[in-house]
Amino acid sequence: MPSSAASEPGIDDIRAAAQRLLGRAVLTPLLESPPLNARLGGRLLVKAETLQRTGSFKFRGAYNTLAQLGESQRKGGVVAYSSGNHGQGVAAAAQLLGLAAVIVMPADAPAIKVANTRGYGAEVVLYDRDRESREEIGGRIAAERGATLVPPFDDYRVMAGQGTAGLEIAAQARALGVTLDAVVIPCSGGGFAAGCAVALAAESPGTRVYAAEPQGFDDLRRSLAQGRRVANAPGAKSICDSLLVQMPGELTFPINRRLLKGSLAVSDDEVLAAMATGFADFKLVIEPGGAAALAAALSGKLALEGRTVAVIASGGNVDPATFQRALAAR
Amino acid sequence: MPSSAASEPGIDDIRAAAQRLLGRAVLTPLLESPPLNARLGGRLLVKAETLQRTGSFKFRGAYNTLAQLGESQRKGGVVAYSSGNHGQGVAAAAQLLGLAAVIVMPADAPAIKVANTRGYGAEVVLYDRDRESREEIGGRIAAERGATLVPPFDDYRVMAGQGTAGLEIAAQARALGVTLDAVVIPCSGGGFAAGCAVALAAESPGTRVYAAEPQGFDDLRRSLAQGRRVANAPGAKSICDSLLVQMPGELTFPINRRLLKGSLAVSDDEVLAAMATGFADFKLVIEPGGAAALAAALSGKLALEGRTVAVIASGGNVDPATFQRALAAR
Repeated sequence: MPSSAASEPGIDDIRAAAQRLLGRAVLTPLLESPPLNARLGGRLLVKAETLQRTGSFKFRGAYNTLAQLGESQRKGGVVAYSSGNHGQGVAAAAQLLGLAAVIVMPADAPAIKVANTRGYGAEVVLYDRDRESREEIGGRIAAERGATLVPPFDDYRVMAGQGTAGLEIAAQARALGVTLDAVVIPCSGGGFAAGCAVALAAESPGTRVYAAEPQGFDDLRRSLAQGRRVANAPGAKSICDSLLVQMPGELTFPINRRLLKGSLAVSDDEVLAAMATGFADFKLVIEPGGAAALAAALSGKLALEGRTVAVIASGGNVDPATFQRALAAR
Repeated sequence: MPSSAASEPGIDDIRAAAQRLLGRAVLTPLLESPPLNARLGGRLLVKAETLQRTGSFKFRGAYNTLAQLGESQRKGGVVAYSSGNHGQGVAAAAQLLGLAAVIVMPADAPAIKVANTRGYGAEVVLYDRDRESREEIGGRIAAERGATLVPPFDDYRVMAGQGTAGLEIAAQARALGVTLDAVVIPCSGGGFAAGCAVALAAESPGTRVYAAEPQGFDDLRRSLAQGRRVANAPGAKSICDSLLVQMPGELTFPINRRLLKGSLAVSDDEVLAAMATGFADFKLVIEPGGAAALAAALSGKLALEGRTVAVIASGGNVDPATFQRALAAR
C-alpha cells in the first residue's frame, strides 16, 4: 500500500499539514541582519529551518505523512533508508506518534548520526554499502513487518508537509509588512522546493521561487532547461552532502517545472562563505547543503539590490571539522 | 532627566513592554533536543535569544526604554557606552525609532563590533581606555546634545524590557503543556535576571529562578549569600566577556534578592563545553557569556533528572577563533 496521497498537493493539503504540525514542529523564525542588509543594499530574510525538530525541515514532511497512516499501517510501523536528515525526521515523527520506526543506514555512517537516530527511539539497521542494497533491505523489512516505506521526497504527503515552511514564510513576510520579490530553497530531490512553491504560489503570488543546488549536482537546473528529467554526470563532488541526488524526482519535477523560475548552482567556496555569514550575521549553525540558498543570494546569482529576498537555511547537521573549515575560510 | 521609570517593574510593566516590542523583537523559539534529553534523563529547553535582533536580549530593554522617551528627549537622541551587546541593542532600537544614537566604545574594540554598531546607523565615538573615562565622555555628550543616557541594566524600563523574554518562556512552556521546575538566566549586572524573575513569578509561580555567572565574577552569588552587594576580588579572568561586571546593580539587586533561588557559578571549561552542545544539539551559535546558563544546567549544578528546566542562551556575538576553541574542546 503506497504511503503517498493520490494527487498533487494543493494549498488546502498544505494548510491541513500545517494544522497537523501545530505544536509539533517548531515555528522557525524569519531572521534578518540590518548591518548585512546595509552592505547588500537589499533586504535578505533567512528562514531558520536549522532550528526545526531534528535540525532540518525533513521533520515536516515525515510527520505529515506518518500522521495520516491508517490503523493497520500504524501497527506495522515505518521504515526509511537514510544516513542523514530524512532518517532523523522519520524517527522523530514516529516517536511523537507512538509508531515503531526502522532506519536503514550504512555501517560506515558517522557514529553521531547513528546515536542521534537511536536517540529518537528508532531501531537502526546497518548495512554494508559495498555488498548490500539499502532498497532491498528496506523492502524486506517492509514486507516482513508490514511496515510502510517513507520516501524522502517523491511523495505527495511528504511534499505537502515540506510546503508548510513556505506557508510560514508567506505569513511571516506579511507580518513584517513586506512583499517578497523572491524565495530561494535548497534542493536535492525537489520535494521541499515543490511544496514551498505550491504554498507561495497561493499565498504570495507575485514572488519568484528558485531552487539552489550544488555545482555538479544541478540536475534540476539542467532538467528545467531541457524540459525533461536528466541525471548528473558521474564523478562530481560537493561539500553539500545532503543535496547529492542524481536526478529530479518523478513526482516533484512536474510541479517544479511549472512553478519555479529556475535553479541556481553554487560552488563549495560559495557555500563555505555562506556558512560563515550564517555564523557571523545570523548566529546560525548551517550545514553545507542547508546553506546553498544563502550562498546563491550572497554570491550575486540573484539580484538583491533594492529587493526583498527570503532564503531557507534548511538544515544544521554539520560536523565540527566542516564548520571550522567554513569559519577559517572567512 | 533620568531615563528610568520611578518604581520597580511589575508584571503590568512587562506586559506593556511586550506590546511595545510586538513586531519589533524576534519571538525567539524555545528549543529542545530529544536525544540530549534522553542522555540527561530530564527535559532541557533553550530560549534562543541568540536570534534576537542584534544577536542578544539587550535589544528588548533598549527598545522598551527608547520607545517611552518624551518628545523633548527624542530630539536629543540617546547615548550609551558599551563595546558589546548593549551598544548594539541601543543602536538598533534608536534606528527603528528614528532617534540619533551615539555609542561610546574603546578605540581598541574589535573592528567588527565597531562596524556592526555603525551598521545600525549609530555614531561611534572612540576613546582611549588608558587615558579617558567613558563615563566622562558619555556625560559630556549627554550634556552637549541633550542626549539621554541609556544604562545597561540599572534602570527599571530596561529591566521591564528584558523581562519580556521571561513572559515568552512562560507562554511557550504553557503551549508545550509543561510546568517549568526551574529557569536559569545568564547574569552580569542583573537586569535580565530581575526582569525575567518578575515575569516568571507572575506567570509561572512555582518555577525556581536562578542566575548563572562566571567563576570569579560570581558577585551576585556571594551578594545573595551575604544579603548585601559585594564586589568581585580583583584579577579574576573569564572567557565570558559579556558578563564581567564587578558588582550587582543597585536597582537590580533588591529584586534578585527577593525573587532568585540562587546563582550558579560556571568555569571556562564548562562554558566551552556548553557552547559545543549548543552547536551540536541545538544548532545555535552561543557566545561564552550567553552559554553560562546552559553550562550550569549541563555541568550538574542544577538537578535535571526527571525535571523540566529552561535556560536562556542570551547572546551569540562571538568571534570565530573563540567558537573554534569551543568546537575543538568537544
